[in-house]
Amino acid sequence: MDAIKDGWFSEVNELWPGQSMSLEVDKVLYHEKSKYQDILVFKSKTFGNILVLDGVIQCTEKDEFSYQEMLAHLPLCSHKNPKKVLIIGGGDGGVAREVLKHECVEEVHMCEIDEYVVEVSKKYLPGMSTSFSNPRLHLHIMDGFEFMGQHQEEFDIIITDSSDPIGLASSLFEKNYYELMKKALKPNGIVCSQGECMWIHIDLIKNMLDFCDTLYPSVAYAYTSIPTYPCGQIGFVLCSLDPEIDFENPSRKFSSEELTLLEMRYYNTDMHRSSFQLPEFAKRALKCKTTNGKNGI
Amino acid sequence: MDAIKDGWFSEVNELWPGQSMSLEVDKVLYHEKSKYQDILVFKSKTFGNILVLDGVIQCTEKDEFSYQEMLAHLPLCSHKNPKKVLIIGGGDGGVAREVLKHECVEEVHMCEIDEYVVEVSKKYLPGMSTSFSNPRLHLHIMDGFEFMGQHQEEFDIIITDSSDPIGLASSLFEKNYYELMKKALKPNGIVCSQGECMWIHIDLIKNMLDFCDTLYPSVAYAYTSIPTYPCGQIGFVLCSLDPEIDFENPSRKFSSEELTLLEMRYYNTDMHRSSFQLPEFAKRALKCKTTNGKNGI
Repeated sequence: MDAIKDGWFSEVNELWPGQSMSLEVDKVLYHEKSKYQDILVFKSKTFGNILVLDGVIQCTEKDEFSYQEMLAHLPLCSHKNPKKVLIIGGGDGGVAREVLKHECVEEVHMCEIDEYVVEVSKKYLPGMSTSFSNPRLHLHIMDGFEFMGQHQEEFDIIITDSSDPIGLASSLFEKNYYELMKKALKPNGIVCSQGECMWIHIDLIKNMLDFCDTLYPSVAYAYTSIPTYPCGQIGFVLCSLDPEIDFENPSRKFSSEELTLLEMRYYNTDMHRSSFQLPEFAKRALKCKTTNGKNGI
Repeated sequence: MDAIKDGWFSEVNELWPGQSMSLEVDKVLYHEKSKYQDILVFKSKTFGNILVLDGVIQCTEKDEFSYQEMLAHLPLCSHKNPKKVLIIGGGDGGVAREVLKHECVEEVHMCEIDEYVVEVSKKYLPGMSTSFSNPRLHLHIMDGFEFMGQHQEEFDIIITDSSDPIGLASSLFEKNYYELMKKALKPNGIVCSQGECMWIHIDLIKNMLDFCDTLYPSVAYAYTSIPTYPCGQIGFVLCSLDPEIDFENPSRKFSSEELTLLEMRYYNTDMHRSSFQLPEFAKRALKCKTTNGKNGI
């Protein structure tokens, strides 16, 4: 348990050299190695319970809603009538919780490779794993590549809630994964994937948007604020088979009453729109890598 | 030099308990106590040179532009014809660099209490302190309260570039400071102040907007992403004596060519607009604390 020293957990990783977020530990709740990865859960002093995979913070109870809400509602509100949704990864249940807020969604399939993540989340992250008891959610403990190989033209939305492009999740940031998702989408389907951070990985993002442009008629990049991810920000790669889609202006909007009723803490239509507005440095770097009137092109 | 241990600088502070940003140190360039505060400058491995006051990161060469550009251009672009600008604090010169990009600005007065900050910046932060050689900039090494007491109805814009509400800068977050600024403003004048982080200090922000509402006809809250401030985000409190102002829709806009020419790295008109869009949790918490059609009221 080297990452914890003098009562603090520190996230040191070669993906973000020279910087590290530390969180004060109240109590370690779980620490085991699964078949796939090192799984740590600790109760922190000020961020609630925290899930850490291979030394990298996946979610904290204090701020997870920002990531989960945006990753789910950006694609779902951009689709006119999403009925069938696939989540790759997301074993903590947080994204599924958000997807299930859409009453039009009839079936959610979740493909999580590591059942230990699901079990640990059920025990220590009840606010996220509540979704597992929903009858519309179908959990498949298997590899996402394998699952999609068996499912063609089936999904309105595919959400990839992955860890970073190192080790287990690295294949989810490559072109053949986006080809596989394209085949699994229904006409006008949308994919939305964890898209790393523009402050650290602008070249990786540029490369992803570049190959997405060769596969999908509509591609865009959005981002959200989240304190416990590196640099306090994470992005989303959105692609659609619908050449007419306007990601910045969602097809479906939640009213103020619905936002309250659905216990939204981050997402609203104004945040949806503004999440696509890029700072100049990113706009310049990603220019010509996105199509269809989005991100300033 | 306790904050540096095993080659890493860590920012532990009672204002953000249980969390800490660490940056890997290449070389300590300067470390002295001035009359007012502990001043540390180090060369980091991945964020360039970094200025630290009383243990708190003030700016890094990698990401300072986000804060400096937004703190300056949000108020300046909201004003139809700003000619005379006052900066309280900002001794590193970064905000002045941005203010001076506006050709309509004839005079910039900067009131920095600690001349050591200016000297250190001139030596170790040349990209920021370049502004000190501009003949339109007038530097006053004195207390901002005292300076404003001598200047009534003089400024179109007053920018407060302060450290956090503890120790030296705490008086800059109080009502009587906003009263003093109000008196120093010309008709239709605007103030823009460092406004802390909604993820940590929502109650402090609510309190500030609350007393601002009793003093100014127009009040709004905006924010920006910045990796090396706590939670990766910092906000801005904007107030105007103009009851008709619409902060979200700037009076003056930079063209794409101007943005390039002026070496803008963060600010553009879309970022201006989107910086006022608040996540649901903040919108709810700050509701009724802002006036004049801004921030969703």
